[in-house]
Amino acid sequence: MRNSPDENLDISEGLEDVIASTTSIGYLDGQKGKLVYRGYDIFDLAEYSTFEETVFLLLYGKLPDRTELEVFNDKLVSYRPVMDEVLDRLAGTPCPCHPMSMLRSGISLMECIDETCQVAQDIEGKREMGIRLIAQMPTLTASIARILNNELPVPPDPGLGHAANFLYMINGELAEPLAEKIMDVSLILHADHGMNASTFACLVVAATLSDIHSAITAGISALKGPLHGGANEMVINILLDLHSQEDAKRYADEVIANKKKLVGFGHRVYSTIDPRAKILRQYAEDISIITGNECLFKIARTIEKRGIKAYGKKGVCPNVDFYSGLVYYCLGIPTNMFTPIFAVSRTAGWVARIVEYIEHNRIFRPRALYVGPEGLSYVPIDERE
Amino acid sequence: MRNSPDENLDISEGLEDVIASTTSIGYLDGQKGKLVYRGYDIFDLAEYSTFEETVFLLLYGKLPDRTELEVFNDKLVSYRPVMDEVLDRLAGTPCPCHPMSMLRSGISLMECIDETCQVAQDIEGKREMGIRLIAQMPTLTASIARILNNELPVPPDPGLGHAANFLYMINGELAEPLAEKIMDVSLILHADHGMNASTFACLVVAATLSDIHSAITAGISALKGPLHGGANEMVINILLDLHSQEDAKRYADEVIANKKKLVGFGHRVYSTIDPRAKILRQYAEDISIITGNECLFKIARTIEKRGIKAYGKKGVCPNVDFYSGLVYYCLGIPTNMFTPIFAVSRTAGWVARIVEYIEHNRIFRPRALYVGPEGLSYVPIDERE
Repeated sequence: MRNSPDENLDISEGLEDVIASTTSIGYLDGQKGKLVYRGYDIFDLAEYSTFEETVFLLLYGKLPDRTELEVFNDKLVSYRPVMDEVLDRLAGTPCPCHPMSMLRSGISLMECIDETCQVAQDIEGKREMGIRLIAQMPTLTASIARILNNELPVPPDPGLGHAANFLYMINGELAEPLAEKIMDVSLILHADHGMNASTFACLVVAATLSDIHSAITAGISALKGPLHGGANEMVINILLDLHSQEDAKRYADEVIANKKKLVGFGHRVYSTIDPRAKILRQYAEDISIITGNECLFKIARTIEKRGIKAYGKKGVCPNVDFYSGLVYYCLGIPTNMFTPIFAVSRTAGWVARIVEYIEHNRIFRPRALYVGPEGLSYVPIDERE
Repeated sequence: MRNSPDENLDISEGLEDVIASTTSIGYLDGQKGKLVYRGYDIFDLAEYSTFEETVFLLLYGKLPDRTELEVFNDKLVSYRPVMDEVLDRLAGTPCPCHPMSMLRSGISLMECIDETCQVAQDIEGKREMGIRLIAQMPTLTASIARILNNELPVPPDPGLGHAANFLYMINGELAEPLAEKIMDVSLILHADHGMNASTFACLVVAATLSDIHSAITAGISALKGPLHGGANEMVINILLDLHSQEDAKRYADEVIANKKKLVGFGHRVYSTIDPRAKILRQYAEDISIITGNECLFKIARTIEKRGIKAYGKKGVCPNVDFYSGLVYYCLGIPTNMFTPIFAVSRTAGWVARIVEYIEHNRIFRPRALYVGPEGLSYVPIDERE
C-alpha cells in the first residue's frame, strides 16, 4: 500500500474536499450561507420547530405528527435521569478541571456503571441508546455545572420541555419564556453541521462497531479542542473586556489594521454570514435588553459591522460563535459551560449520523504517505553514533 | 471509489486509498508482508530491540545511544504510577463492564483528577504527556485486570523493565524470562500499524488541538470496536472449543466448505501473511510447550495450514490476531484483557503520530455528499400527513 514520495500522488490535507460518505441528514452551503436539516431550512426550524421535533426529524427523516411527537417526548423525558453513581464519581475533582473533561468522563463512565447501557449492539439498539444519550446530555451537563459551582445537582423536571428543563437544571429555577425560547433555538441551531471534526470523530469510532458511548466520548473529545468548540468563550471574554462602543471601535480597528483574525469571524465552510449568527443576532439583542446587557450587544454589533466592512468581501463573516456566547452570557450560564452546551445540542447530529453511517458501515482507514528513511540496518546500541 | 448518480463526484468509502497525510513514523507493505518503523524492519526490532527502545525510535526517529536510552527508561519508570483516586473511581462497577470501557474511562478521568495533567498544550507539552501515558497504560490496564478479578492493584516495580513490570502488575509475581521476552516482542509488534482506525481517531481528535488524554481516549474508543481490536479474543475462544487436531481439521474444513471467513485470517491491507503473525508463531510454539498448551498450538497450526491452502492464493492469510491470543492465553492473561494489552502497546504509535501530525496541523473536515430531500416547506404539526 505504500508509495514512494516521487510518485505523483495527491495528499488531501485535512481531507478537505474528500467525500467520505453520503448523507441524508443535512448539509451546509457555504456560499449561500444555507444550513439544511433533512431538506428543511434552518430559518424555518429555528422559527417554528422545537428541539425535540428537530431531533425527531434528524433521526427519522420526517417531521413527526402529533402522536409521534408525544411518544418521542415521553421517551426523552423518561430517559433524562443520570445515575447518582456516575455523578458521584465525577465530583470532587480539583479546580482546574474543564467541564468538557468531566462530560467526556461522565459519558464514558455511564457505560461502565449503568448496566442498562449494555444493550444489543445492532442498529436499533444503538439508535435507542443514542436517544437516551440525547436526553441525558442536558442532565449530565447541568449536573457538572452545579458540581463545579459546589451546588447539588437538580434532578430533571418531567413537566418541562427539553430546553426549559435544561435551564432549570443549570440554574435551579424556572426560566423566563424568552430564555427558554432562546435556549431552544440555540439547541436547534447547533444540532447538526455537516461533517465537522467532532461528528467525524464519532463516525470513525462508530465504524469499528464500537458502542455508542465510545463514539460520543470521541465526539466530546474532539469538540473540546480550541479549533472546534470554544470560540464563543473567546468572543465573550473579549466583549466583556471592552466597556463601550468606543472601546469596541478601537479594538476592531486595531485588529483589522494588523490584519489579524477577528474572533468569531470566518469559517472553513461559510464564505458569507453564518445563518446561525443571523438568527442568534436578533435573539441576542432581545435578551441583552431584558437582562440589562444592551451595552454588550452594542459592543458586539460595533465589532461585527467593522469586521464585515473590512473582511466581508473576502468571505470572512461572523460565525455562530460570535453571538452564541453573548446569548449564553445573558442567560446566566458560566463561560466554561459554553462548549458543553454545544455538545448537548450536537449529540443529536452525532447520533443521527452514527446510525445512518453504520447502516452501510465501512471502517475508516485512509492512508498516510510514508516519507521517512528506508532499509535501515539495526545497529547494536554500543556501535551507534 | 464510485461515482454518485447525479453529480460526477468520487465517494471515497471508508477513505480507502485517500492519502490523509504524510508520515515518517512507519508503513506497512501489504503485498510484501512488510512492516517498518522509522526505516527499520519489524523482524529486526522484534529480535534485537526492546519495547522501550522501539518507543524511543517511534517518538524521536532514531535508535537511542546508551545514555539516551537510560534517561528515557528512567523517565518511563518515573511516570508509571497512576493515582489511587483514578483507580478508586473505576472500582466497583457492575460485572459486565468491559475492561476497554474502564480503560477509556480511566484515561479520561486521569485528566480530570490529576492536576499535573494540566500542562502546556504546546507540542513539547503534549509529547511529554504522551510519554507519561505510554508509561501509565500498563499500570492502568493491569490495575483494571486486578480490579475486575477482585484483587488489589499491584504498584509498579521500578527495578523491572516495561514488559516484565507489566506482567508483574497483572499476575502479582515475577514472570519467567521467556514470558517477559514474549510480552516485550508482542508490545513491539503492536506498537504502530499505519493509519488504522484507532490511530486515525486519535489524529481526528488531536487535530482540533484538544488535549492528548482526549485523543488517546478516542483511540481506545475505536480500538474497542469488534472490527478493529478484539479478533484475537474470538480466535482463542475457537481454539479452546476444539480439543484435538482432528477437531481442528473438521472445523477448518467446514468453514472453508461453506466459504465462510476463518477468524484471524485476512486483513484490509495485507494480501500475504502478516509479518507479525510469522514472528508470533514461533513464540507461540515455544510458550505453548513450556506451559503445557502444545495441543492448543497444534490445533492453531492445523487450522492455519488448511486456511492458507484454501485462501492463501486469494491473499487471505493469518493476521497477527491468529497467534497473539494464543500467546496471551499461555501467559495466563484473561481473554477480556487481550484488547487492552493491544492498547497498551499501540499507545506508542498513537502518541508518535499525534505529535508528528500536530507539528503541521490541519483539522480534519471531509465532506459528506448530501443525497436527501431538498427545499421542503415546514408544515404545522396538525396539517402533517
